[in-house]
Amino acid sequence: MTPAQTNLVDTLRQRFGPKVVTTDAEDIAPWLTDWRGRYRGAAPALLSPGSTEEVAAIVALAAAAGVPIVPQGGNTGMVGGATPPIDGSALLLSTRRMNRIRSMLPQSNLAVAEAGVILSNLHAAAGEVGRRFPLSLGAKGSATIGGLVSTNAGGVQVLRFGTMRSLVAGVEAVLPDGSVHDGLVPLKKDNRGYDLTQLLIGAEGTLGIVTAATLRLYPAIVQRAAAWVGVESPHRALELLRMLEAQTDTIESFEVIPAETLGHVLAHVPGTRSPLDGAHAWHVLIESVATDPAAEAPGALLERLLMPAFEAGLAEDAVISASEAQVEAFWNLRDSISGAERALGPAMQHDISVPVDDMPRFLIEGAAATERAFPGTHASGFGHLGDGNVHFHVRAPDGADAESWYAGEGHAISSFVYDMVVAAGGSISAEHGIGQMKRDELERLSAPSRIAALRAIKGAFDPHNILNPGKLVSLAPGPRTP
Amino acid sequence: MTPAQTNLVDTLRQRFGPKVVTTDAEDIAPWLTDWRGRYRGAAPALLSPGSTEEVAAIVALAAAAGVPIVPQGGNTGMVGGATPPIDGSALLLSTRRMNRIRSMLPQSNLAVAEAGVILSNLHAAAGEVGRRFPLSLGAKGSATIGGLVSTNAGGVQVLRFGTMRSLVAGVEAVLPDGSVHDGLVPLKKDNRGYDLTQLLIGAEGTLGIVTAATLRLYPAIVQRAAAWVGVESPHRALELLRMLEAQTDTIESFEVIPAETLGHVLAHVPGTRSPLDGAHAWHVLIESVATDPAAEAPGALLERLLMPAFEAGLAEDAVISASEAQVEAFWNLRDSISGAERALGPAMQHDISVPVDDMPRFLIEGAAATERAFPGTHASGFGHLGDGNVHFHVRAPDGADAESWYAGEGHAISSFVYDMVVAAGGSISAEHGIGQMKRDELERLSAPSRIAALRAIKGAFDPHNILNPGKLVSLAPGPRTP
Repeated sequence: MTPAQTNLVDTLRQRFGPKVVTTDAEDIAPWLTDWRGRYRGAAPALLSPGSTEEVAAIVALAAAAGVPIVPQGGNTGMVGGATPPIDGSALLLSTRRMNRIRSMLPQSNLAVAEAGVILSNLHAAAGEVGRRFPLSLGAKGSATIGGLVSTNAGGVQVLRFGTMRSLVAGVEAVLPDGSVHDGLVPLKKDNRGYDLTQLLIGAEGTLGIVTAATLRLYPAIVQRAAAWVGVESPHRALELLRMLEAQTDTIESFEVIPAETLGHVLAHVPGTRSPLDGAHAWHVLIESVATDPAAEAPGALLERLLMPAFEAGLAEDAVISASEAQVEAFWNLRDSISGAERALGPAMQHDISVPVDDMPRFLIEGAAATERAFPGTHASGFGHLGDGNVHFHVRAPDGADAESWYAGEGHAISSFVYDMVVAAGGSISAEHGIGQMKRDELERLSAPSRIAALRAIKGAFDPHNILNPGKLVSLAPGPRTP
Repeated sequence: MTPAQTNLVDTLRQRFGPKVVTTDAEDIAPWLTDWRGRYRGAAPALLSPGSTEEVAAIVALAAAAGVPIVPQGGNTGMVGGATPPIDGSALLLSTRRMNRIRSMLPQSNLAVAEAGVILSNLHAAAGEVGRRFPLSLGAKGSATIGGLVSTNAGGVQVLRFGTMRSLVAGVEAVLPDGSVHDGLVPLKKDNRGYDLTQLLIGAEGTLGIVTAATLRLYPAIVQRAAAWVGVESPHRALELLRMLEAQTDTIESFEVIPAETLGHVLAHVPGTRSPLDGAHAWHVLIESVATDPAAEAPGALLERLLMPAFEAGLAEDAVISASEAQVEAFWNLRDSISGAERALGPAMQHDISVPVDDMPRFLIEGAAATERAFPGTHASGFGHLGDGNVHFHVRAPDGADAESWYAGEGHAISSFVYDMVVAAGGSISAEHGIGQMKRDELERLSAPSRIAALRAIKGAFDPHNILNPGKLVSLAPGPRTP
């Protein structure tokens, strides 16, 4: 520890006690690496405040001491955004003890949750009052509200409900000088200058530590159904989506999967079978839900709406779930893709988005261009067509050594993919954020005015680089991190 | 003109010609005052660029010369945000020549409109392709897209569609150094750092000049109906709203009007009559729409949903429109309030919001407290209950002289009202923005950390105060403007 760190830790320990401050290496170790093990960091102390006031006091003292703080929620991020620097220059601050749901207001369809509330706990609490919080993702058992807000998380229901940004009605955060931004009161109309709440959403803890959020709730689902549809191409899939959207707003998910990808699942995941008998170049998984018991049943609705799709030649074949178990079986196929692909060898995975209208072309041409440029690789995309967001995977040639391929050709492939995304006007980070993983690529691929604006904002809020330094954007141009 | 201004205007004239640059006082005069005549300014030149490139070139040259620019759209603002400073230090830049709809994509439910496109023209263009842009307000025949984005405009459909912020899928803007923020591509998921588009929405032209926006379209309305309901109190009105919201998402407007206010309309506006025979303390105007010809007719839906409201004692009486003419007649009552109140003498009007749940209490207690504190005044609120946004009017005591009352007691009343709003966690500007009118009140009533953050952002983007100086927030604390 530097003298400044030692002083700070001593002061914090005296003030808040061992519950809030630990320097025990064993206690700290699990939080020094991201869950995929791709990033490693170091931190001489782990701070676990239990309230906004404690966070504010910690940040004020850290700012005065010039010691940076790295905030961390469930540590489920994909881009190393919550992993502290390897040089041990920063202290780690965990929000996990701030796990209270401060209020649950079903009448107003609002909940106020502290940063450390785990997503699945919020789901359960909303369910108990006949509501739901309609954002979900694989890590829901660990991911926290603070992290979800700070990364503007997406997930599988973005098509209908938008990302976290759409679901946040207010934010409370501790700013880099230790002052508290109190923006929890949900105002539907509020034009008092620049929207600080919007700025804090997706800022990855670099402008403030989100300590609580007011969140929008929706009526609970009473019934759902899924359709599995065989289509000729992603272009047809998009036409099908547009046709459905024009007639109903009950579609929550619209996932596309190429035949080859489905084949990997069927080959490698025991107990799976294809929902359709024949062969189709592309597959679509559609989920529709009902929140009103008196409304048309989602299965009947899907059947009715898919009929004209057959007549219009958009769908080749389809099966509609007859039970909740069958809905689960359909989703199991979709959710097993990453695991099945892992069995096939090393792959570069890209979380990208392009305009929805352009996604079918990108899927076909982008995969072909990648395979041409890197012979022996297999490129494919699957996922949320309706959001313009797909997981674009490029598998190494057979027999490639994982470590050396990732560092060599794999790295070059990612740059190639990101270049294509930028050429299509898209985003090199659809939902995972920038963190440390994509910071240099963001700088390489953005207009200088954009990077200048990001830097200006960071510099204005956090001139001494106290909060999550080195993530999202560097304060000044400098030597690239490897 | 200062020497710097003279040089700049000469350079601009040589480069762009008289179509873009005028110094003719008669041409400039109409744009030097806001439409209500409350603010007056001066400007030695009016610039009317026809393209984003021209705006960028103008701003770059102005920045180099240190001459500020005040952007102006339809000049329909309520807070003096588009009126140049009175000292003639800034040039006026009108976006009115940038009036192209660059693309209309009904399949994708998107339109790309330049800043100078007039709102009603966008409505018409969307209507031609079977879509609508669901934001409307009284000034729709003059208000422009650039101004609507820059003020995060609201209007009468916010209940269902949100403010402009919810309807903007992308923004193009010229930043204070003349660089172009190209954020028009509509990406549903994009986590590439701080959201600059969100920051530019509602920034009142102080961070950038919005030159175009990508806007969300919705299916055109095929039918609408309105209900006029008599209720006992705004509390009952809110319960009624919650009951309706739980059963349908077709409610576009939910306006509350106190009996006394309706009485003024009936007394002063020829040809009006009360929709209900009996006396009711409060009145509610509800509009429901259908976009699908096969859906339940809005009138039948309102009738069906209001039935249990009677049984629950929420509604005392109701009438449902039998024709489009009757819908118009209902709205005419609501739209005539401001005119009718003007006939009664001078009044202070406040555009405020509080949390929806607290609005009924605020309406009753806020009016009573104001009348107690300022004997002889009449206070009342009407408007968008579902948004937590009402127009809170306080009428002068009978016989008050308008000019001296506005400057004296009127001013004190506004501070009193804003103090109550802040105590309720509300906003002193629900939809009109800050401009020059509310800048000092915003500074007085905000947490210092909030004002510091606003200043930091302004300073980071526009350190030389080139764009719309003195609006929204001052760059540094200083002597208050009167």
